[in-house]
Order: sequence, then C-alpha cells, then structure tokens
Amino acid sequence: MRVLITGANGFVGRQLALQLLSQGSVRGCPIDSLLLLDTQLGGFPDDPRLRLYSGSVTDAALIRRVLADGVDIVFHLVSIPGGAAEHDYSLGYQVNLLASLELLDQLRNKCCPPVLVYASSVAVYGAILPARMDETAIAQPQLSYGAHKLMVETALCDLARRGEVDGRALRLPGIVARPWQPNGLRSAFMSDLLHAFADGQTYCCPVSPEATAWWMSAKCCVNNLIQAAELEGLAQDTERVWQLPVLHLSIAQVIDALAARFGEVRRSLINFAPDSDLQALFAAHPPLKTPRARAAGFNHDGNAAALVRNALNLPAKQRRAP
Amino acid sequence: MRVLITGANGFVGRQLALQLLSQGSVRGCPIDSLLLLDTQLGGFPDDPRLRLYSGSVTDAALIRRVLADGVDIVFHLVSIPGGAAEHDYSLGYQVNLLASLELLDQLRNKCCPPVLVYASSVAVYGAILPARMDETAIAQPQLSYGAHKLMVETALCDLARRGEVDGRALRLPGIVARPWQPNGLRSAFMSDLLHAFADGQTYCCPVSPEATAWWMSAKCCVNNLIQAAELEGLAQDTERVWQLPVLHLSIAQVIDALAARFGEVRRSLINFAPDSDLQALFAAHPPLKTPRARAAGFNHDGNAAALVRNALNLPAKQRRAP
Repeated sequence: MRVLITGANGFVGRQLALQLLSQGSVRGCPIDSLLLLDTQLGGFPDDPRLRLYSGSVTDAALIRRVLADGVDIVFHLVSIPGGAAEHDYSLGYQVNLLASLELLDQLRNKCCPPVLVYASSVAVYGAILPARMDETAIAQPQLSYGAHKLMVETALCDLARRGEVDGRALRLPGIVARPWQPNGLRSAFMSDLLHAFADGQTYCCPVSPEATAWWMSAKCCVNNLIQAAELEGLAQDTERVWQLPVLHLSIAQVIDALAARFGEVRRSLINFAPDSDLQALFAAHPPLKTPRARAAGFNHDGNAAALVRNALNLPAKQRRAP
Repeated sequence: MRVLITGANGFVGRQLALQLLSQGSVRGCPIDSLLLLDTQLGGFPDDPRLRLYSGSVTDAALIRRVLADGVDIVFHLVSIPGGAAEHDYSLGYQVNLLASLELLDQLRNKCCPPVLVYASSVAVYGAILPARMDETAIAQPQLSYGAHKLMVETALCDLARRGEVDGRALRLPGIVARPWQPNGLRSAFMSDLLHAFADGQTYCCPVSPEATAWWMSAKCCVNNLIQAAELEGLAQDTERVWQLPVLHLSIAQVIDALAARFGEVRRSLINFAPDSDLQALFAAHPPLKTPRARAAGFNHDGNAAALVRNALNLPAKQRRAP
C-alpha cells in the first residue's frame, strides 16, 4: 500500500504520518511506502517506509514525480489557512484551488481509482449559520478559503461519480491545540486559550465566555481522516462529503474543563476582550447534528474533558495539578 | 463602453452580438468596442465597433491581449456542451473550468471591477429534481459539465464578495431552436423537434409526449443576458446566481403550439421512441418558481406560442400555413 500525505509537515499532517507509521497498515494492507510532501520536511523518524518530497504542491511536475510509481491512498491536507488566504488571495488560489484541481486531475484512474481523503472545512458554510444545523446545511462561503474548499469538494464528487478518483471529503472544524505561532488561522485563539491555561500564562481571549464554537482535537481529527480512508464499498454516486461531528462548546465550558484539569486558580489568568470579527466568524456556532457522519464511523472527542486531554496530549489520568 | 463576448460564434453568442450592435448601448453608455472571441469567427457585419479575436479561451496569453485595453462588461458564454464534456472530460475541464477560472482571475480589478455575466446552466441541479422546485433548490450535478458550471459560480460569487469582479451568473435551461447539427448537447432534441415541425419533416422524438421540460428561446435568453448586465447597484454580498424563469411545458404542449402555427396536419409527422437516458435527464422537469429572478427583471418567453415564434424567428402575426 502506497500512501501520500500532502501538507505532511503541518499540524495535522505530522500527527497523521506518525499514526500511520505506528499502526503500519490501512484498509487491511500494510503500508509499504508513506510519501510525505511539504515545502519543508524535518524531524520525522528514520523509517525505511518514508519517502520525503520537499517542494510545493503547486509544482505540477513534482506531483507527477511523486505519483510516478502509483499511489493507493492520498490524504490531501495542505492548504493556506483562511485568514492568510483571504489576505494573499493569489497564494490561496494557487495552493487551495489550482493545486488541488491539478492533483485530482493527475490522480484520475478509471482502472484503479485511488482513495483520496480531502480535508475540507466548515468554512464552506460562511458566517451566517442557521439556528440549528445538520448535514444538509447550505454552503455559502464568506472567505475565499471556504469558496475554494467548496469548489474542490465539487470536483472530488464529480470524479467519484465518474469512477476515476475514490474521493471522500471531510469538513473539519477548527483543530486544537495548534502550536503557538502566527499561522494565518482566524481560529488560532481556540488553541492559544488551551496552551495558555495549560502553561499557566495570562491570556486575553478575543471572544466572550458565552461564545460557542465547534471543537476537535488533532488526535480525533487524525482518527477521522483514517476512518475516511477505511470506508469500503462506496458507490460512485454516494454522497462524498461528510460534515464531521463536532463538540459544540462555549468558551466557558472549555475553561471549566481546563480548570478541572489544571486547577481553579488559573481561571483568573484569563480575561476577555471580544473582537467583533472573530465573534461573528467563530463564536456563534449553532448545535450541529451529524447522524450521517456518525453512521459512517466519524466521531468527535466525546466531551470537554476528553477534548482538553486529546488536544494537549495529556495522559488519561493525572493527579490534580497543585 | 468596451464589451467582450466569449463564445461569440455560438448559437446564443452570435445573437447577443447582433443585438448589442443593434441597440448600440448598455448600462446607459454607448458601446465603443465589441470584442468577439471564439475559435472561429465569420459572417459578422462590417462594423467599426467590432474587434474579432480568433482563438481558444484556453489560451491565457490571448485572453491577456483581449483584455489589454480594459473591458467594462464580459459575457462569458463559451462552453463545451454537457454531452461532449462528459465524453471528452479533459476538453470540458480545460474549457469549462480552467479557462473560466483563468478569465475570472485576469478580470480581477478592485478599483473598477468589470461586470461579468456568466452563462451557467440548470445542469448544476443534476438529474434528481424535487417534485416542486424554486430558486433554493440544492445543486447536485450529475455531469462534469454541471459540476464545472457550479464551481465557476462559486468562484464568481467569491470574487464579487471581494469586490474584484462584478459577477452575475444565470442558470440557463436548454435554449431553442439551435441549428440542426451534431453539437454534443443532450437537449438537442428540443430544437430538432421545432425545426422538423416548421420544415414539415418527419421526426422521431426521443422523449414521450407527456415529458415535461424547461424551455427558452435564444431571443429571450439574449434579453436575460443583457438584463443581467444592466442590473445596477448590487451589493458585494448580494446573491449573484439567478435561476432564470423557464417555460415548463410538455412535449405535447409544444406540439400543440406548433400545430396551431404550422397546421394540424403536421402532427402526423412526429412519432415517439423514448430514450431512457434522455427521458431521465430532460423529460421529468418539475415546475420551477423563480420569484427572485422575476423581481430582478428576468423573464421566460411567456407562453408556448411565443416560444415557438421567438425560437423560430417568426413574425408576430402570420397567416395560418396551408
């Protein structure tokens, strides 16, 4: 089994690569080669199954070299984040849209369609969400990032219908807890809050305590990406886009879980200065029902305590911090 | 005012070009230059306002030359029809998707966003239509043609939201009466029926008399395209896609109108041999309500008699044929 990860050096990509190396097989077959593609790659274990390709996903000739010996499963994760893509439209257009279309085009294979797992995003829905949402909610992107994700979903569904690429698109919520760094993600505050609390640092939260958002840990996300690859026997005309289940939590609920883990005293380190843009984009997310995704084996973290544990890679049981 | 038509040699493009030359102005300003782009161009009047560009819309350098002196309004009509694009995927992908994206990208202009009227299609809905439809129907394309149209709609809405292209997409039904010729359009039978009856020829109709489809004449379509360009003061976040009003007529109703125009005796020249594929794709169209499009000034032909008259360029009043 030959498996490719684009954006393999990213926050989710790296954890996915390590998980695949660790479990050693997917879709019932051993992973012989794990091909990693990213602009820079470093810090991966010395494993004979790894093939590292440093370069841009926008380099069509590089993609041809990567795919030259065939590929069975592709996890297409690379993307310019929403805020950065909105600011530098051309970069987002090249990476998020054109490179994805080129990759899909190169993957077309009627005889033996490769499995493609595509990391789409809840950004496809736009900022105006219904009061109660389910998997039939209409996509009306309000960022170029979301528009391009939606377009790639449409292309993926078309090639699946044609039997040329066995695509599966997952709409991901904000994934936590990303490392502290400027990353162009408008949802970065969700990760920053977790890190700050865990590290006992003061933090000024840019949304209110009542703000409700959709949460998922990277660990849970990786499990869902692999589950997407595992799905067997999808008909060509099966709906190929799944909204992942999400934990629908207020900032206050997340802080409660953090306080239960790290101590009540740290609550005082968090203060609030809501930013109207962020509040509008991320902080009024409604409940989201996903029975179809649940039936396909996709899950969220379970509860706020598990989210905190998974997101910060904490052991399952730990003595209360002093 | 500089106006560009892509696909200007096509069935609709040619009539649009002649109408624009005839009316001489659009959006309240005289048309100084009418730029026509198509793979071949011929038979246009000798008019000093015309600029002919022969070549492919997939030639990005040609598009740059066409747009070099700026453009105020673009009618982007060129496309590989649904049947042909399904058969030759790569051609449809290059023309219907990539060339459209490249054109949109070249049109981006924050200072003075050009008006772009895009000919989208009812093919975006796919074959499985609800029993009663309105403008909120979900797009689930079942042909690559429809998938690519939907993707370009998404791109157009994104660039409108960004204030870089003042886009307006119209979802067109099958347009009649196209000339007799193999053109890769699955809906060609709708035109063929009209021509056959008008010419007094026998015709074997590939859908049943009860089959209901959506109809519009090229004349009506041209009026709608121009109306789309005329819309003033659209906010950036206004919904930029309109489902055009359509005449919802059975084949029997169209034949009744043809018989009223050309004589009852010709009914006997039409027989029926329904093709299951065509029947599924075109012959079970539900009623379609379009109050939003109506409010924006878009119209269908009015009734079956007017459709026949407009589609065949007949005078408004005519003595009954013998």
